[in-house]
Amino acid sequence: MAAVVAAGRAAAADLAVLPTSAKDRALRGLAQAIEAGAEDILKANARDVQAAEARGRRPAFIDRLRLTSARISAMATGVRQVTGLPDPVGAIRDLTRRPNGMLVGRMRVPIGVILMIYEARPSVTVAAAALCLKAGNASILRGGSDATHTLAALAPLVRDLPGLPADAVQVLTPAGREEVEVLLQSSGIDLVIPRGGEELIRTVTRLARMPVLKHFKGVCHLFVDRDADLEMARRIVLNAKAQRPSTCNALETLLVDEAVAARFLPATLQALRQAGVEVRGDDAVQALDPAVVPAADDDWGREFLDFILAVRVVPDLTAALEHIRRYSTGLAEAIVTERLDRAQRFLQAVDSAAVLVNASTRLVDGGEFGLGAEIGISTNRLGPRGPMGVEELTSYKWVVLGSGQVRE
Amino acid sequence: MAAVVAAGRAAAADLAVLPTSAKDRALRGLAQAIEAGAEDILKANARDVQAAEARGRRPAFIDRLRLTSARISAMATGVRQVTGLPDPVGAIRDLTRRPNGMLVGRMRVPIGVILMIYEARPSVTVAAAALCLKAGNASILRGGSDATHTLAALAPLVRDLPGLPADAVQVLTPAGREEVEVLLQSSGIDLVIPRGGEELIRTVTRLARMPVLKHFKGVCHLFVDRDADLEMARRIVLNAKAQRPSTCNALETLLVDEAVAARFLPATLQALRQAGVEVRGDDAVQALDPAVVPAADDDWGREFLDFILAVRVVPDLTAALEHIRRYSTGLAEAIVTERLDRAQRFLQAVDSAAVLVNASTRLVDGGEFGLGAEIGISTNRLGPRGPMGVEELTSYKWVVLGSGQVRE
Repeated sequence: MAAVVAAGRAAAADLAVLPTSAKDRALRGLAQAIEAGAEDILKANARDVQAAEARGRRPAFIDRLRLTSARISAMATGVRQVTGLPDPVGAIRDLTRRPNGMLVGRMRVPIGVILMIYEARPSVTVAAAALCLKAGNASILRGGSDATHTLAALAPLVRDLPGLPADAVQVLTPAGREEVEVLLQSSGIDLVIPRGGEELIRTVTRLARMPVLKHFKGVCHLFVDRDADLEMARRIVLNAKAQRPSTCNALETLLVDEAVAARFLPATLQALRQAGVEVRGDDAVQALDPAVVPAADDDWGREFLDFILAVRVVPDLTAALEHIRRYSTGLAEAIVTERLDRAQRFLQAVDSAAVLVNASTRLVDGGEFGLGAEIGISTNRLGPRGPMGVEELTSYKWVVLGSGQVRE
Repeated sequence: MAAVVAAGRAAAADLAVLPTSAKDRALRGLAQAIEAGAEDILKANARDVQAAEARGRRPAFIDRLRLTSARISAMATGVRQVTGLPDPVGAIRDLTRRPNGMLVGRMRVPIGVILMIYEARPSVTVAAAALCLKAGNASILRGGSDATHTLAALAPLVRDLPGLPADAVQVLTPAGREEVEVLLQSSGIDLVIPRGGEELIRTVTRLARMPVLKHFKGVCHLFVDRDADLEMARRIVLNAKAQRPSTCNALETLLVDEAVAARFLPATLQALRQAGVEVRGDDAVQALDPAVVPAADDDWGREFLDFILAVRVVPDLTAALEHIRRYSTGLAEAIVTERLDRAQRFLQAVDSAAVLVNASTRLVDGGEFGLGAEIGISTNRLGPRGPMGVEELTSYKWVVLGSGQVRE
């Protein structure tokens, strides 16, 4: 593993000064190689899927593992999109002249060597390699053992990109836990990004000696204020819960101001049920709709990742903020209101990676935010925070352009 | 210690929404309280200094520990300067309209709870409290046991600021190592900043479960290019080495292009000696000046923090970059050149928190960079990097201002 880290460091130094055109050429080559290799990738993936089924893996897991022609096309398209993004490296922002005449600013630079640890999803291999490369970082990719054959088919494509320094992208064979532990202790790796189940992420966070960009889970809340546009609120709730409930930015708990509960909830709960959503409510919600399942204590702050929604009636915004402070996992929270003062109070008081007014939590996404791509969402309080695109995979250094200035 | 962390968290939530005027009022009160309490502080400090002398602490340590009327005035002035700085919290940058009409931007927010661990210097207590407060953070301050009485005199001043939530600033009694270890394992602390010797910083980094903002040491390099203005180079070298050699941004190694070594070095080495600097050189440097001490292998990459300079003649910029890549501690590196291409190559290739062209490394400082104040310098590759002022003690969250947008 020491050789892997040393090779990554050497590659990172060369990548940091590689022109954008060379990086984009390599990425276009990667997109073509994926399309050209589609048949081999599908064959290798079929073996992994078969083995995972034989091991009794659950359907959701199999679905994440499985590649199709459409998914392989999407991988290639994703790489081409990264090619089209601006290269953040080398940009100098806020160059200001100091009283002594020197110019001081911050230059965007790559982070260095990034370790990516992920589970079933083989497409992370390609997305991570592409985003890290565009930002000038060397990457070390370590997927899950369930995807062994798929990773073996993808590895040569991302590893041998023409015009790049050797070891710009390294793909590790899914191996024992010990190797990962050694990497997580290495001072030669600047950042680790785990993607997968909460247990993986907790283990990585516990062992890592370098910064970890991660979120454990997304328990997103939405508060419907007494002065909300109730029709808008209904549309947002339905979208946030039912458009794709398995994602981390899907809604898990709905909080409703008691002043509008009787007007808002009956029709909304009916619409949710029509969309296949089971509603678990507190006493006040149950009183408004006999079909509501009583919410258990542990339904508050629970990440259902499914067609289930916890619903609670609260006295006011203050009570909603208290609930959120207690149960939020810091990923995304939303308010629906027509009142500017309450919107501003919500924006200020909620301490989450993304805070939304009159919009669905499902919009918390690198693509929707204009980052062009996304390698994950971070709930770290110290940045990068929220959706992470190419620029979030860079850091900065101070640059000083002087003409002989000294310290007085 | 769990109670300390919980109190800090509660205070942080209140501080995050506190108006600028309330924070500035508390800071003005702090400046006054320091001036009013000067006599008591000096008395307490005299006891600490006496005890430290009796324990045989070295003069440099005693100097860091000692307070004078002038230093107490400077503490109060520093606090007033922080009052005058803009409040970064709540500012929204780059608010952009997405194709679906929603506005997306990043709002500056406090980091949360910051733990400051420091050694002899009692003034860190006041500076850290002031900067953390201005940025809306709760702080937990833990100074060294040598400053026990001084800290006891300062604690009530920073702790009981009118108009602030309780426990906005907590001052711990210098206690056993175990208490610090418990704090460093706490998930309720968002950031730790150690200030002091390398051993303290290594220990904190090893034990901490949260991000650590730090630099271990500053081994700063300066390269004199073959196309440098040699008179400018001489002035910068003298300033960088001799203006205040005990600081982390002082020059430790001078690299000179062999094409100008014979023209540049003799007069420069003589000027350095006149300033009291001992020069340790490689063979080429010794050949130019018989008074040069032969450099030992471990003089390269060494932090002298003293009137000593290692000097080496290198074939060209490439060799200088290789030397820097090997020996730099990533704090500050400078080039002196009139050539734009070499300046740009140096700026790109050197991976340090600050990279300077034609300016002294001593200028790497929060005040000189325009941050208004500084709590320390970070060499972390992931930001904040370089001098840290008030804004570097904040993070951000994404805010979305919508009008009913949902995910398609």
